[in-house]
Amino acid sequence: MQRMKHTAKELAEYLEAVVEGDSRAVISGIAGPERARESDLIYADSPKNEERASKSAARCVLALPAVQLAGKTIIRVPQPKLAFAKAADWLLTDKTRPRAEIHPTAIIAASAELAAEISVGPYVVIEEDVEVGRATRIEPFCFLGRGCVVGSDCWLHPRVTLYPGAQLGHRVEVHAGAVVGGDGFGYVFGEGRHWKFPQIGGVTIGDDVEIGCNTAIDRGSLEDTYVAEGVKIDNLVQVAHNVQIGEHSVIAAQTGISGSTVLGNRVSVGGQAGIGDHCRIEDDANIGGQAGVVVGKTVRRGQVVWGTPARSLQRFKEQYAWLSRLPELAERVSVLEKSQSDAK
Amino acid sequence: MQRMKHTAKELAEYLEAVVEGDSRAVISGIAGPERARESDLIYADSPKNEERASKSAARCVLALPAVQLAGKTIIRVPQPKLAFAKAADWLLTDKTRPRAEIHPTAIIAASAELAAEISVGPYVVIEEDVEVGRATRIEPFCFLGRGCVVGSDCWLHPRVTLYPGAQLGHRVEVHAGAVVGGDGFGYVFGEGRHWKFPQIGGVTIGDDVEIGCNTAIDRGSLEDTYVAEGVKIDNLVQVAHNVQIGEHSVIAAQTGISGSTVLGNRVSVGGQAGIGDHCRIEDDANIGGQAGVVVGKTVRRGQVVWGTPARSLQRFKEQYAWLSRLPELAERVSVLEKSQSDAK
Amino acid sequence: MQRMKHTAKELAEYLEAVVEGDSRAVISGIAGPERARESDLIYADSPKNEERASKSAARCVLALPAVQLAGKTIIRVPQPKLAFAKAADWLLTDKTRPRAEIHPTAIIAASAELAAEISVGPYVVIEEDVEVGRATRIEPFCFLGRGCVVGSDCWLHPRVTLYPGAQLGHRVEVHAGAVVGGDGFGYVFGEGRHWKFPQIGGVTIGDDVEIGCNTAIDRGSLEDTYVAEGVKIDNLVQVAHNVQIGEHSVIAAQTGISGSTVLGNRVSVGGQAGIGDHCRIEDDANIGGQAGVVVGKTVRRGQVVWGTPARSLQRFKEQYAWLSRLPELAERVSVLEKSQSDAK
Repeated sequence: MQRMKHTAKELAEYLEAVVEGDSRAVISGIAGPERARESDLIYADSPKNEERASKSAARCVLALPAVQLAGKTIIRVPQPKLAFAKAADWLLTDKTRPRAEIHPTAIIAASAELAAEISVGPYVVIEEDVEVGRATRIEPFCFLGRGCVVGSDCWLHPRVTLYPGAQLGHRVEVHAGAVVGGDGFGYVFGEGRHWKFPQIGGVTIGDDVEIGCNTAIDRGSLEDTYVAEGVKIDNLVQVAHNVQIGEHSVIAAQTGISGSTVLGNRVSVGGQAGIGDHCRIEDDANIGGQAGVVVGKTVRRGQVVWGTPARSLQRFKEQYAWLSRLPELAERVSVLEKSQSDAK
Repeated sequence: MQRMKHTAKELAEYLEAVVEGDSRAVISGIAGPERARESDLIYADSPKNEERASKSAARCVLALPAVQLAGKTIIRVPQPKLAFAKAADWLLTDKTRPRAEIHPTAIIAASAELAAEISVGPYVVIEEDVEVGRATRIEPFCFLGRGCVVGSDCWLHPRVTLYPGAQLGHRVEVHAGAVVGGDGFGYVFGEGRHWKFPQIGGVTIGDDVEIGCNTAIDRGSLEDTYVAEGVKIDNLVQVAHNVQIGEHSVIAAQTGISGSTVLGNRVSVGGQAGIGDHCRIEDDANIGGQAGVVVGKTVRRGQVVWGTPARSLQRFKEQYAWLSRLPELAERVSVLEKSQSDAK
Repeated sequence: MQRMKHTAKELAEYLEAVVEGDSRAVISGIAGPERARESDLIYADSPKNEERASKSAARCVLALPAVQLAGKTIIRVPQPKLAFAKAADWLLTDKTRPRAEIHPTAIIAASAELAAEISVGPYVVIEEDVEVGRATRIEPFCFLGRGCVVGSDCWLHPRVTLYPGAQLGHRVEVHAGAVVGGDGFGYVFGEGRHWKFPQIGGVTIGDDVEIGCNTAIDRGSLEDTYVAEGVKIDNLVQVAHNVQIGEHSVIAAQTGISGSTVLGNRVSVGGQAGIGDHCRIEDDANIGGQAGVVVGKTVRRGQVVWGTPARSLQRFKEQYAWLSRLPELAERVSVLEKSQSDAK
């Protein structure tokens, strides 16, 4: 992996932190403590990780003030894991950037507009009137349908499919096999068959969104589907037509969000959760893994819900505790009955 | 979007409906009320939508007799949403039909038989003995394995994969990333390892079926997998080996149907439902979202089931209501105990 | 389907079994009883299947000692279904093996090392420093990222994507659309946004693993993701970063396994199950379909769990039985109350 080399001092400046030890120590990568080489950066976010960090070959450690590490160069930060993620972003930015070139097998319509420094891999198909921004990277077998707009510094991994008209912001990363802009699932039954309700709306993905492998985000039916800035979506997620997802929300793997549902900002959704159509999930709500939010339901700001049908975590726990104690309750009722019967 | 232009009169004739207002008004597309231009058709299916329709720039409206819209050309229909879907089908049929041509990069075996008016995009692979019917459209990166049969007027979106021998009827639409005919999941454990049970059956998809993005429909093991006419399958659905799905059934996203299960006609399955193997789901049954139908179970004709294990919706609601009232019931038992104890 | 022809005697020797009847009978394929031709092998694993087997055109039957079949050549085995799977493996090994050739449209980096007898289909992309073992088959649209290692006798179906550095053992079969080595889903929230936690670990798939259509197996974050020898994974499964799956475990469709969870050997996971992160599922445990194992939980060796939150099957059944009887219990409490009230 090609990396930029930096010193502990430079990294500390970037992180606005203080260095203890050799500030000229070179940092060229990141790693877990056991795998780190001398020039890799590691982190220790609790005193119980002191030993792992101490034994590591890494010279530089991001650490809490409380953590003691003899012989290491320590960059003191209040949130070592956060600092580590930021450092990784800073150190590895250019790690796999390919040469800016268009592979000769890419088929690009004459009317497509590609900005500078774009990399297009083998066997990519870009249709008419597509626009792609600066320094975006498009890997093999990607399909950009007619009229798509992709911002700058995006990364489309192999065989990403954008249906015609899909719009992506800047710094969007889409993983292999994801589909953006497929038809929504809507029919009207009549005369013994299903008639497809028109699926002609748009789909817009904001800046800094990441979309996982084989995830499907449908276009709107008559309106648009909208995923706001900073949203992170895991693998195999389903986002239906007309859904709106607010800024910095996080959706774990295999979750399904049904049509016209609106998620606020910083909503967190666990894996395999299902959210019915026309729900409203307010800002900072937290939907537990496998929870099922029934059609049309509102989950209030900051609420944590669990189970199917989804209810507050507190209530879920209470109900589950009572369910576990049912045999005991039934036994108590039997005792009462016997005692009453004896009394007669 | 290129569209055919029609008049209100022509559309009314197609819908067997009556026009009120200017029957020569031109209709060239469809839209939601807020986005419609003058020549777009909209619909108003309840009096509460009167205002949205009234304010729309659209001249022509499909509306119930009860809906009043001054200044509009109204086509009176009993089911405006159905009429709208039918109108969309009629108006937009040619909307994105590409030129009937075979892209020079498509690799097509000499023994494949392609009917007239077929469109084959770049980087398509069609193996030996494949047959494709008239006016079918095959987008980039599709793979049609040896011996596949695809009917006429089908639409395979980018990178649809048909394993060898898969059979599709007419007017089948398959969305990006879907796989038809993958091996079923069956093994026999012996001698410390899993031996693959042969997965050599067929898979047949009937006319007018639609299959969503990244959905997987496996071939049969020794028998066939069968999806009947008019079935609609959403994104990320799993259909296992030997499953049979009856006519006009609808399967929402991320549902899984296990091996050898049989669904009747017009069955409706909500999102993320799981149906165990060897189940029988009779005609017109309705399986709720996230429901889990246990192995070998029969769901009766027209029955609505919910929960895991799936039971009737009525019973699910009762049980859930009781679960919610358990703390109160326990309190009543405590009162009885105290009162009996006092009485002694 | 091209098949090797064998005699009943040869098959019996391979299976270490005894032939009754014409040991020179030719076997050239396998089938279900109803579809079998004379030279197809069938099996009868219980007396109730005697009639199906008797009526079959097949001459040779794998059967239990108890099964009587006049006029057939019978190979007596204690586990007919297992013997059938083994026979299929033996008879059909060469069934669809293509010619060992590299299609001229495959784009293969000069530094890639391909062993002998490899078949590479059209429009495959193999990047720098990839190694592929003997007789491996790579179908159209597969992508093997930089530095991948694929063993011998593997079969990558169309459009399998291996992210850079993914490692596959020998005899691994990966179905269409599966992705191995995508980035794990990990972020650290700070300064109002999500910072991506580095996802730079590896992913290793052991020998004899099968991976279903559109399944996603992520690479590790700082450590590795590991799928051991003989594991079978169905379609649309999610395996998150740092997960370890032990030998011969079986994971049914649409299951999700969250980060850093460890599964032992011979674990069986039903469809749509969800396993939270940092769980430990010990050897031979059995996770029911749609079960939800909560974060950090241990499932003991051989334990069978069901429901969300997952509990022992026995306990799940008890609780569910009590839930069903709640209305009756409440009625008994009402009777007690009335009787006590009358007594006053």
